[in-house]
Amino acid sequence: MNYKMMGRFLAQILALEGIFMLPALIISLSCGDGMAVKGFLVTLGILLAIVVVLSLACRGAPSAFHAREGLVCVGISWIVLSLVGCLPFYISREIPGYIDCLFEIVSGFTTTGASIVPSVEALSKGILYWRSFSHWVGGMGVLVFLLAFTGEKGQGFTMHLLRAESPGPDVGKLVPKMRKTASILYMIYVGLTVLNILFLALGGMPLFEAVCTAFGTAGTGGFGVKNDSLAGYSPYLQNVTTVFMILFGVNFSCYFLLLVRQWKSVFRDEELRWYIGIILGSILLITLNIRGLYDSLGETLRHAAFQVSSIITTTGFATTDFDLWPSFSKTILLCLMVVGACAGSTGGGLKVARVLLLLKGLRRNIRQMLQPRKVELVRSNGRPVEQKVLDNTNAYLAAYVVILFAVFAIISLDGFSAGTNFSAVLCTFNNIGPGLEAVGPTCNFSQFGSLSKLVLCWAMLAGRLEIFPILVLFSRDTWKRR
Amino acid sequence: MNYKMMGRFLAQILALEGIFMLPALIISLSCGDGMAVKGFLVTLGILLAIVVVLSLACRGAPSAFHAREGLVCVGISWIVLSLVGCLPFYISREIPGYIDCLFEIVSGFTTTGASIVPSVEALSKGILYWRSFSHWVGGMGVLVFLLAFTGEKGQGFTMHLLRAESPGPDVGKLVPKMRKTASILYMIYVGLTVLNILFLALGGMPLFEAVCTAFGTAGTGGFGVKNDSLAGYSPYLQNVTTVFMILFGVNFSCYFLLLVRQWKSVFRDEELRWYIGIILGSILLITLNIRGLYDSLGETLRHAAFQVSSIITTTGFATTDFDLWPSFSKTILLCLMVVGACAGSTGGGLKVARVLLLLKGLRRNIRQMLQPRKVELVRSNGRPVEQKVLDNTNAYLAAYVVILFAVFAIISLDGFSAGTNFSAVLCTFNNIGPGLEAVGPTCNFSQFGSLSKLVLCWAMLAGRLEIFPILVLFSRDTWKRR
Repeated sequence: MNYKMMGRFLAQILALEGIFMLPALIISLSCGDGMAVKGFLVTLGILLAIVVVLSLACRGAPSAFHAREGLVCVGISWIVLSLVGCLPFYISREIPGYIDCLFEIVSGFTTTGASIVPSVEALSKGILYWRSFSHWVGGMGVLVFLLAFTGEKGQGFTMHLLRAESPGPDVGKLVPKMRKTASILYMIYVGLTVLNILFLALGGMPLFEAVCTAFGTAGTGGFGVKNDSLAGYSPYLQNVTTVFMILFGVNFSCYFLLLVRQWKSVFRDEELRWYIGIILGSILLITLNIRGLYDSLGETLRHAAFQVSSIITTTGFATTDFDLWPSFSKTILLCLMVVGACAGSTGGGLKVARVLLLLKGLRRNIRQMLQPRKVELVRSNGRPVEQKVLDNTNAYLAAYVVILFAVFAIISLDGFSAGTNFSAVLCTFNNIGPGLEAVGPTCNFSQFGSLSKLVLCWAMLAGRLEIFPILVLFSRDTWKRR
Repeated sequence: MNYKMMGRFLAQILALEGIFMLPALIISLSCGDGMAVKGFLVTLGILLAIVVVLSLACRGAPSAFHAREGLVCVGISWIVLSLVGCLPFYISREIPGYIDCLFEIVSGFTTTGASIVPSVEALSKGILYWRSFSHWVGGMGVLVFLLAFTGEKGQGFTMHLLRAESPGPDVGKLVPKMRKTASILYMIYVGLTVLNILFLALGGMPLFEAVCTAFGTAGTGGFGVKNDSLAGYSPYLQNVTTVFMILFGVNFSCYFLLLVRQWKSVFRDEELRWYIGIILGSILLITLNIRGLYDSLGETLRHAAFQVSSIITTTGFATTDFDLWPSFSKTILLCLMVVGACAGSTGGGLKVARVLLLLKGLRRNIRQMLQPRKVELVRSNGRPVEQKVLDNTNAYLAAYVVILFAVFAIISLDGFSAGTNFSAVLCTFNNIGPGLEAVGPTCNFSQFGSLSKLVLCWAMLAGRLEIFPILVLFSRDTWKRR
């Protein structure tokens, strides 16, 4: 393991975090929130100190990364970003308790949106902005940002990092150069976010709220600025958010293909078709199941569509307390939590592409049982899928199930019901946010003990980074000398 | 598809069911239970009629099986055995409603032990015997019995059937001939069952109860003859049952190896070591967690050991209402439900061997991520595991997860809590029996609607036959002409 190289990289990432924190500091300054200003200034000071020390200590480190260093760097970067990023909450005393602050910022960076804050409306504007902006940064990835907009070179470096931080079974390049790919992705991301802010502002939402809500939507995070999430906004604003949640759950390479006018390949994309199909099917089933709960069919459809889009994209906004819905609707939402959004989007969960690969692998297996001598290939969009990708997908599912049960067992020490614990695990691990029962849309995670909160933080990170960059940190093989 | 061949095979299986029903008829006759006698006689008449018709219609069918016919035969046999096997309950009117009767016998044959009977003590002796005996028959497998003790020939035939009906990722032959293997397995099974009856009788349990309890233990089923399962019996009887449950959860080839004095390979067996380790670890954790609930450490240990053994072997007997235990203990039990017993035992669940393969596959994947150029092999007991076995294990997990969520969604239509539904699915699909909350040890499954009961029957069959023989029945490829 080349620690110098990792130190140098960490310094860059932390410098970037400092830059990201500046707008929040300016907002706090302009609002005159003394404690919040202190929080950001002290944190910036700490960041500066770490960056200087790391840069001096790690001068002259090579910039070429191996697979191992790439994976480890991603995991460690996210942990360090969170450990420092939560300091403004702590120093400003707006959230008491360091572990609660850590939970909140991990929930932000991982675009989970699970909160331990009982009343978000009591937070100052600068803190609210930092909380929502963490979603936006975490959505597309901090490291991807570094690749896209700084001078970091080295093809191996970018490959390994982009692969580790981007969601989905297989990361494709849009253009031959990885760095170019990363910056195209970010351009699309910025463009869609601006569009979202515009549409919200057109509906009469105050600019600050529109920006924060758009950050929560774009990162598929779910932190809002109101205690009742989006329930108090007009139907127009809710519908705009529904549409943008769905848009941010689509594989961003689809937008690239639209930009270069390859309409056909977008409309033929299997994952996109299934994603849209699952959303429409779920809205239909839930609308049928909850009919009579709301005044009109229009209102029922609006709530069903909003909640389905919010859960499948793993955003976690709510316009109604879906914990009061009948069991069947809640179960559909639980299933959507696991499926998640498209690969290459900002959403979490298993990802539709991965679910498709698992199902196709299963079908191949059944066919081979029926005709042991025939060789069957798994195809995706008509092209055969490499065995390596299938192996990775299977290993992913195994890791997913193991982590699900392990976290479930540990947090059950706090004594909540099985339903609460199970949905708390699903909601953090899949980066959704609110769950059912005691962690439902009207409740929060503050009631869990410190151990559970730390384990849930770990689950959120594992979910966001697609397990392996976090899992390798705990593998003996990673730290072995060669 | 060669339907004649399948018809001939089905006739043999149903004839065997008729023979198996005779002891229950004799018990009913000697107790003078008129309605039960009528139930068995009418059912035997129906069986005879079907067997005669099928035998005449399918004369001269070939006896060599292909993979496809083998798989389909296993699935269909178990369904037909259940459809006819539940008739005594229905005709004797001891269980009202055909779907309830079907649920009860499927729960019996699949060694689940989930019941819809509110008071088992109200059932007549003949019916109780048939109910418990279905566990014993289902435990080792009806088709395996046919192979072991009748004149059915053809190596292909036996291979495909044994593979489809026996639990575990890979079926090994004990001796070169499959038929010999099947009969050795049954000999061990009979021997252990007789030992179990002896030990129970020595503890003062009446012979009828001892036989029924041993059937429930041997098949890892869980139907008892008392309303409070084993809670009313003496600590000695409970401890005997604990030991025998653990014994019946061990891979039977270990006993064969003991018989031929290959001690070393038994003690070195990875699956056995993990199985024992998981049991001891779980007992320890639960004892720590429930300390103070019972009068003495001895009693606490006895209840912990009994419940752990009952759940991991997927038997489902209970000596105490574990739904009243703290969340952590209940979660450990939920995890054990999924893990299940050893491959090649009468228990259900994923099987320890399969869990080990999944974890090893995961470790290999992490290692290959760290060092992409190094080739890593998955080993089991020191020998490399074929890629095909790994692929099957992965496909199994995928199918397992998909079925879990699908059944969960359908039964949630009945409106019970997520905890109840989730544990109901886990308990039927893993062939355990009682679950938590509204399907806990003191409750039963009678409250579910007809659709849910049928779907849970399907889940029990899928769980017992390890998914694929049931899944292929629903695959278009199976019924396609070639």
